[in-house]
Amino acid sequence: MVSWNNLDQTAAFKKLAGIKKVSVAEKMAGEEGAQRVEKYSVPMAAGLSFNYAAKAVDDEVLAALAELAKEMQLTEKFEELYNGAVINTGEKRLVLHQLCRGQLGKDVIADGVNKREFYEAQRKAAADFANRVHKGEITNEAGEAFTTVVQIGIGGSDLGPRAIYLALENWAKQNDMLKMQARFISNVDPDDAASVLKSIDVSKSLFVLVSKSGTTLETLTNETFVKNKLAEAGLNPAKHMIAVTSETSPLASSSDYLAAFFMDDYIGGRYSSSSCVGGAILSLAFGPEVFERFLNGAAEEDKLAAKADPLENPDMLDALIGVYERNILGYPTTAVLPYSQALSRFPAHLQQLDMESNGKSVNRFGDKVDYVTGPVIFGEPGTNGQHSFYQLLHQGTDIIPLQFMGFRENQAGMDADIQGSTSQQKLCANVAAQIMAFACGKADENPNKSFAGNRPSSIIIGQQVNPESLGALLAHFENKVMFQGFLWNLNSFDQEGVQLGKILAKRVLAHNTDGALKAYSDLLGI
Amino acid sequence: MVSWNNLDQTAAFKKLAGIKKVSVAEKMAGEEGAQRVEKYSVPMAAGLSFNYAAKAVDDEVLAALAELAKEMQLTEKFEELYNGAVINTGEKRLVLHQLCRGQLGKDVIADGVNKREFYEAQRKAAADFANRVHKGEITNEAGEAFTTVVQIGIGGSDLGPRAIYLALENWAKQNDMLKMQARFISNVDPDDAASVLKSIDVSKSLFVLVSKSGTTLETLTNETFVKNKLAEAGLNPAKHMIAVTSETSPLASSSDYLAAFFMDDYIGGRYSSSSCVGGAILSLAFGPEVFERFLNGAAEEDKLAAKADPLENPDMLDALIGVYERNILGYPTTAVLPYSQALSRFPAHLQQLDMESNGKSVNRFGDKVDYVTGPVIFGEPGTNGQHSFYQLLHQGTDIIPLQFMGFRENQAGMDADIQGSTSQQKLCANVAAQIMAFACGKADENPNKSFAGNRPSSIIIGQQVNPESLGALLAHFENKVMFQGFLWNLNSFDQEGVQLGKILAKRVLAHNTDGALKAYSDLLGI
Repeated sequence: MVSWNNLDQTAAFKKLAGIKKVSVAEKMAGEEGAQRVEKYSVPMAAGLSFNYAAKAVDDEVLAALAELAKEMQLTEKFEELYNGAVINTGEKRLVLHQLCRGQLGKDVIADGVNKREFYEAQRKAAADFANRVHKGEITNEAGEAFTTVVQIGIGGSDLGPRAIYLALENWAKQNDMLKMQARFISNVDPDDAASVLKSIDVSKSLFVLVSKSGTTLETLTNETFVKNKLAEAGLNPAKHMIAVTSETSPLASSSDYLAAFFMDDYIGGRYSSSSCVGGAILSLAFGPEVFERFLNGAAEEDKLAAKADPLENPDMLDALIGVYERNILGYPTTAVLPYSQALSRFPAHLQQLDMESNGKSVNRFGDKVDYVTGPVIFGEPGTNGQHSFYQLLHQGTDIIPLQFMGFRENQAGMDADIQGSTSQQKLCANVAAQIMAFACGKADENPNKSFAGNRPSSIIIGQQVNPESLGALLAHFENKVMFQGFLWNLNSFDQEGVQLGKILAKRVLAHNTDGALKAYSDLLGI
Repeated sequence: MVSWNNLDQTAAFKKLAGIKKVSVAEKMAGEEGAQRVEKYSVPMAAGLSFNYAAKAVDDEVLAALAELAKEMQLTEKFEELYNGAVINTGEKRLVLHQLCRGQLGKDVIADGVNKREFYEAQRKAAADFANRVHKGEITNEAGEAFTTVVQIGIGGSDLGPRAIYLALENWAKQNDMLKMQARFISNVDPDDAASVLKSIDVSKSLFVLVSKSGTTLETLTNETFVKNKLAEAGLNPAKHMIAVTSETSPLASSSDYLAAFFMDDYIGGRYSSSSCVGGAILSLAFGPEVFERFLNGAAEEDKLAAKADPLENPDMLDALIGVYERNILGYPTTAVLPYSQALSRFPAHLQQLDMESNGKSVNRFGDKVDYVTGPVIFGEPGTNGQHSFYQLLHQGTDIIPLQFMGFRENQAGMDADIQGSTSQQKLCANVAAQIMAFACGKADENPNKSFAGNRPSSIIIGQQVNPESLGALLAHFENKVMFQGFLWNLNSFDQEGVQLGKILAKRVLAHNTDGALKAYSDLLGI
């Protein structure tokens, strides 16, 4: 039986606080630095590796982190989770997103159903549907092939699938696997839907309406917007729309949709890319095989996450180091910096995944915790960020831990050789250079040109952004966030913090307001 | 004569620290809240207003902030700047981006040239060029009209112009002002250029190469990439490319370009959208009149920034409140949250503007400051953010000050009425609701459903995102960042923090490395 304790109740945490802090600048200089790069690396799935040489850790800190992992029973808690315990205590739900891509433990039976079988059946149903669309068996009413798929969803129904689509779009083009182009409508701002609809041929577009509850206001609003547009064009909306929802939602058995695919309450929105929330659109865009390869990469990473030794478990190790940085070193923010244009929206997905999961002040039992929890997460792709906010990262007054990603190969197979090196080589040279600049800094007699260094970073290195490595990346961060939730003793799987705004917005729309809320509403012309 | 002092040397700062902290939750409740919304508002240019009712200020704090502004001589320092003093002390340069859009003070003569006339001449040259392209006087070699304009630039040559283009694209479509579609290539990752080039008809595309120095590695690399592609397509690159650069750069008089337009060393990259860095592409995309309207909005805002009373100067007031939050209240991060899909990349521009300007640890004289400076800036458009990271903003352990923007009208003129309200009304209702949810929170017997409130925010409210209001918004933040730089006694106009990475990257590409840098390079396959 596991026990759920606060981080600051553990002996290991107190011990950690007392350990001498590591100077990244000292450790990363000279031959010792090279040895750290070799030694402080853990294999991940799909040929990736997690390298933490430039983090503020040494063997003593790592040993204490391993003790913390043991004392906090991280592995046992993960085991409980994947064996079907009610880990989401607030909403009294299981947490089963990993089960969409593999089965780590015993059969999970809930509501009388084998859940692995249920998720697999839904994946296959979406795959079959996609195959029929690709074969021309499902067409528009004029018998023409659908060329575009548009996801209508917000939050987890948007950010993850969108980041994944963008990450694989050029890879798919290059490998002749782009079956349909994908677009996304998320914002309730009508300009979002208007802009997407103007850019596509709606008569050849298939819309995927994604809402677990079937009640998400933004999504239903955008659905109506799209249906109006289809009707205006003389098209039957029911022949252009599928639903991804829960079996109990009002959308589940509606004749308004060509088909419906299901997730359930055990898949949180921000963890839903592996379910048919990601599966429907990605199978339509790239073909079901590509989506399966993505799931396989994620499943391989999940297996690593089940290992008890953090030095063999990149997800747990990343989590432990992050908590060390947040709660012992006191850094409030983390930057995510993929050196890959394909990952341009991956930071936005991680922002939701991390901040919505662990941006909480009370523990699983509703008691206020006495330590800080989830950090602010932000980021943009390198090298763009280098010409933007890196100034602050290098010379600002706060230290921001950095999470780099780098890949040896690009996707599109086009490159240019300039000044003796390719663009891809320049990209990789830059990420290597940045790690060292952040770590070691550089003294200069002009203080304005001095770099203090000691800015810790890790890097995930891979061969290429492809379905397998992307799946592994996604799972890595999901698992990292889960382990951090365990360490902070939070329920990482609810999001009560989004409710109050919804209630007040309804009051505004019902003109049932007074005081400042009415004053703001007046100013905004509502 | 102004004197440049550190923030913590002023009497007003010490006084501020001693003033009783304001409870936003208390102040914003009931009738007092409504009065604050009315009272704590300053007009901005182009019909915008800056409302700071939900900030942690009261009349006492505001009076002390006004004293600080006076003691720090903010107005006098701005006066020095726009009259042509060497404000960028590190690089010994004037700071003249405001002069691109208007003249607040006396004539600025530098290098024997009236700088206002110089910038105006460049704007007009780019405008004439754009008009000739639109009239079909400048075409491709086959005599066909150019339909697409592609900016090749990075950092300030990318983020600002891109954010502005995206902000006005749908407005321009709706108003029949979209003359050419625009695209952007920035990242040295070859997949960025490959993806853009695959999505356009290069034979009808005009490329704008933007590099002040003419030596930016990413930009030159992407230029070669594009030129190769043009040559492969049997096109003459020199007939498809214009340059925006400084008169002293190697690109200035090259026959490789159809035309060249100039900025100079007195326009920093992140402040260059008002120069022909923004002017060339925006005039080509929307027509020169739209770009002029944008400049006029910015110029109007600059005039407000010259006012001495912070209560009449929204840019200075925003700056003062931000410094109060950073240095007295101790908040390390600020979120930028535009409730407008059009402003989807505006936060990325502000991230550069703010973090690259004020992410510094030494003052203008090279002395280390004893206080924190520029915060981390991040953000996404609402309502998307509500379904993502807002959980942490509401219930996380850290308080993150918020900068909202909201507009009464959308751009595309399409909307849908659902459940008794339009999408636009829902959008506006949400931002009003969020402000109040953050300010006042809500007690609940379930601690997991409790909101502590007291999370300060401001909002800029306007009628619509259009050229004038967008210009005003841009200038507002430029001026805010400038005033904050004055308050922190920083040089906000250099970026020495980006240099070390460049040097190390060159060493990697020359295979002139050892230690950890070599080890990383090996792992990345360079």
